[in-house]
Amino acid sequence: MCRWLAYSGQPVLLEDLIYKPAHSLVDQSLRAVEAKTPTNGDGFGIGWYGEQPAPGVYREVLPAWNDANLRSLAHQIRSGLFFAHVRASTGTASTRFNCHPFAHGRWLFMHNGQVGGYAGLRRRLESLIPDAYYEHRLGTTDSEILFYLLLAAGLEADPVGALARCLLQVREVMEAAEVRQALRFTAALTDGRDVYAVRYASDLAPPTLYWRSEGRAVCIVSEPLDSGGKSWEPLPPNQVLVVGPDLQPCFAPLFPVAQAAE
Amino acid sequence: MCRWLAYSGQPVLLEDLIYKPAHSLVDQSLRAVEAKTPTNGDGFGIGWYGEQPAPGVYREVLPAWNDANLRSLAHQIRSGLFFAHVRASTGTASTRFNCHPFAHGRWLFMHNGQVGGYAGLRRRLESLIPDAYYEHRLGTTDSEILFYLLLAAGLEADPVGALARCLLQVREVMEAAEVRQALRFTAALTDGRDVYAVRYASDLAPPTLYWRSEGRAVCIVSEPLDSGGKSWEPLPPNQVLVVGPDLQPCFAPLFPVAQAAE
Amino acid sequence: MCRWLAYSGQPVLLEDLIYKPAHSLVDQSLRAVEAKTPTNGDGFGIGWYGEQPAPGVYREVLPAWNDANLRSLAHQIRSGLFFAHVRASTGTASTRFNCHPFAHGRWLFMHNGQVGGYAGLRRRLESLIPDAYYEHRLGTTDSEILFYLLLAAGLEADPVGALARCLLQVREVMEAAEVRQALRFTAALTDGRDVYAVRYASDLAPPTLYWRSEGRAVCIVSEPLDSGGKSWEPLPPNQVLVVGPDLQPCFAPLFPVAQAAE
Amino acid sequence: MCRWLAYSGQPVLLEDLIYKPAHSLVDQSLRAVEAKTPTNGDGFGIGWYGEQPAPGVYREVLPAWNDANLRSLAHQIRSGLFFAHVRASTGTASTRFNCHPFAHGRWLFMHNGQVGGYAGLRRRLESLIPDAYYEHRLGTTDSEILFYLLLAAGLEADPVGALARCLLQVREVMEAAEVRQALRFTAALTDGRDVYAVRYASDLAPPTLYWRSEGRAVCIVSEPLDSGGKSWEPLPPNQVLVVGPDLQPCFAPLFPVAQAAE
Repeated sequence: MCRWLAYSGQPVLLEDLIYKPAHSLVDQSLRAVEAKTPTNGDGFGIGWYGEQPAPGVYREVLPAWNDANLRSLAHQIRSGLFFAHVRASTGTASTRFNCHPFAHGRWLFMHNGQVGGYAGLRRRLESLIPDAYYEHRLGTTDSEILFYLLLAAGLEADPVGALARCLLQVREVMEAAEVRQALRFTAALTDGRDVYAVRYASDLAPPTLYWRSEGRAVCIVSEPLDSGGKSWEPLPPNQVLVVGPDLQPCFAPLFPVAQAAE
Repeated sequence: MCRWLAYSGQPVLLEDLIYKPAHSLVDQSLRAVEAKTPTNGDGFGIGWYGEQPAPGVYREVLPAWNDANLRSLAHQIRSGLFFAHVRASTGTASTRFNCHPFAHGRWLFMHNGQVGGYAGLRRRLESLIPDAYYEHRLGTTDSEILFYLLLAAGLEADPVGALARCLLQVREVMEAAEVRQALRFTAALTDGRDVYAVRYASDLAPPTLYWRSEGRAVCIVSEPLDSGGKSWEPLPPNQVLVVGPDLQPCFAPLFPVAQAAE
Repeated sequence: MCRWLAYSGQPVLLEDLIYKPAHSLVDQSLRAVEAKTPTNGDGFGIGWYGEQPAPGVYREVLPAWNDANLRSLAHQIRSGLFFAHVRASTGTASTRFNCHPFAHGRWLFMHNGQVGGYAGLRRRLESLIPDAYYEHRLGTTDSEILFYLLLAAGLEADPVGALARCLLQVREVMEAAEVRQALRFTAALTDGRDVYAVRYASDLAPPTLYWRSEGRAVCIVSEPLDSGGKSWEPLPPNQVLVVGPDLQPCFAPLFPVAQAAE
Repeated sequence: MCRWLAYSGQPVLLEDLIYKPAHSLVDQSLRAVEAKTPTNGDGFGIGWYGEQPAPGVYREVLPAWNDANLRSLAHQIRSGLFFAHVRASTGTASTRFNCHPFAHGRWLFMHNGQVGGYAGLRRRLESLIPDAYYEHRLGTTDSEILFYLLLAAGLEADPVGALARCLLQVREVMEAAEVRQALRFTAALTDGRDVYAVRYASDLAPPTLYWRSEGRAVCIVSEPLDSGGKSWEPLPPNQVLVVGPDLQPCFAPLFPVAQAAE
């Protein structure tokens, strides 16, 4: 399990969210309180939009609390839309290419959760990735597969539909293989304009997700960055939170009909 | 293209071959003379047999010339059978899991060469790896695929036959995809008892391979470690050099009938 | 604050102590229970004696729980005398050269504790290191300084006396600078034959130290590796535990007369 | 010996100079042609000015040609004043803190050259660094010492004078120690407004330095990035090239009177 944050709004320095809050993401890398494990020290990453249509990405295998480069970059880079992620591996190796966020074209993706029984399903899941995306696969995580399955499921044209189709597709694979562990998926996606955050699990334990809209900014997090100011709202399971350039949070059901996990 | 060495014989300190010769493997990491590129700075690895049936492996992404840990390990570890490899990437990323040698059970494998057109063939080649091996794939190189294809082709029961079958299998995939670039494969394998070294290319340019038998030791290298003593013998293309515990070099044709690359 | 272990006795695989016990050192790197911080993820190191008079050393900045090389080395290396250390930085950077153990000639040293007010004292402490040792200083920690001060204080001829002289020397520097924070020093030293472990603080809070003698082995640790078998004994403050080749634990007062911290 | 470039002018993407030219800095990291060694693979760094008065810094121990983060950062970061450096160690270790550029407050510094006999002089040179700067020393290189000596010599008030004073001070230390090797110093400094580049050696072999003014930009390099367009001018030895916000190259003698090395 991991911790992450997504920000959309008036441009701020990355350090304003990554380092400065009392329970900042870097603090969560050492002592998360709502995660299965307190330590998220298996690498980290940031992705941000600047003047290019595609995002910049910086990923490293060191713990986030220990990286002087991250500190300097977070002090210099100002962005109106960025993701940051600290990783706690659920079994795959610590390499830069297994760190989040993952980028493809204009899109960024990051994830907290896991595909139950992944070690035995990896190859079947990989086989669902179309060739055009497969050559970009550089790591070995389930998260990176999920990103390419989302792209293949029509992420660009219909993000919420792609989320639903991708999760059902993965559940089908899990069921066919009689996997009993759950699929848990609390993730964020963006094309550089709109942010989509979703909280889902095939059992009753979806990883936490909170959001806060304050001033001209929306912040979405695995766990609250602080206890002050306007309070953090939990996102209900099976919901998609959409934040566009107008910064008005909108909500959509992940599964429009009664397909949700029961 | 990469540089490597394999040693079988009376136990020696790894440093005796990795650091001490005038044109040692670490020297070759900075200035190879018979390689396509002089610099082999994209990581390195060592694999050795000690008291366990499976080999120890140390792999790192730093250039070999720069790694204090390698220097200390090479000064401490004495082995009668070991491999060492310095990497020059042909396109895949520098991660520890893309560094050679690769280990599986009792086996070690390292490689200099490449599968022409690999980026477009990766998935087809991966699909040939049986499930039982696929879950051990941690990197993204063609070399690691070749190792699992060798194991799947019966490496344990018939190493020379497995080499021939695997190379033909890969050539078929390349031909089906109308790849024009060559398959080049100069590699070493061992089960901890016998060493198999092979030099092959589907065109007329197989990467170099030399060997020397001196005293109670056989050393097999990409390029000579020095110019002194008994001279280094080039291995002819399409030959397999086999060195067993008696340290008598034996030779076998890679393709028993006229299947060799023409 | 850090966690460490020292072993002297019948040769064992490093993994038997680093990985296998229920609360092994690698487990302590993620969740130490008697340390100021549970996470010891700022690098690690091992030092061991094999066939060379000088020890081998492997140090890395990744968290110990995440390093495939450590796992392989610990599975291969058998030693009758070794140190292992997982680091929680007290302010200095995560580089290999700031990781313990430190080696010089035949000696190994590792440390848990800190020199209070170190940032302001560093230069004065460094100025006490003789030239012959100073050129070997590669990092920036207080621990590495303490090692060279110990060597300069006569470690080779009189280890216990050198410990006392070094600690008094550092306290004098601290007092001259009117530092109010404590000097805490729970450390192990060895020349490859005898192990010296010491527990000291200038205040009433010396870091923990336990030892156990069982069969033909003595193990000294920051915190117990398990709860079974013969129980772990805490070392009282201001004591030096000495373990020679006969594996009989001996004890000596750190300060023979009443110089101890009060 | 190392390779570096400094840019001042109309803001450009870092990649325009670091990656795109035929003989870009990253290309020079693999095959420099005017350096003592062709390979500059012992780490690298970039420093740039954005919206903060202090520069951002990203330094890494991997070879520059191999770092996906550098590629992404260079594609995103646009700056009107930046430094980039690829390192070939002259003996000190590959750690991030030994990589250039070095930053202090608003200042950036990078260097190609060396203090002859440094291993034996290190401590004497360090003793010349005032306390206020010493606590910022994180590495072990001569270059980092030179930077703090420059700051101590009045860099902020009188940059050219500080360069002269610092170099004479170091020469005095070398002469007092009867060092016969040369002091070589081809370096760049900036406070975020003006760039100072200097080429000096105590013997007749100062490392190369070239500059080019084209359009609204001045570029200063160890060796030309390409052979096209307006030609590159070598900077004569013992000269300081100063480039202010008006982008008019100015020249000053390093030593105003006849103090220059003969």
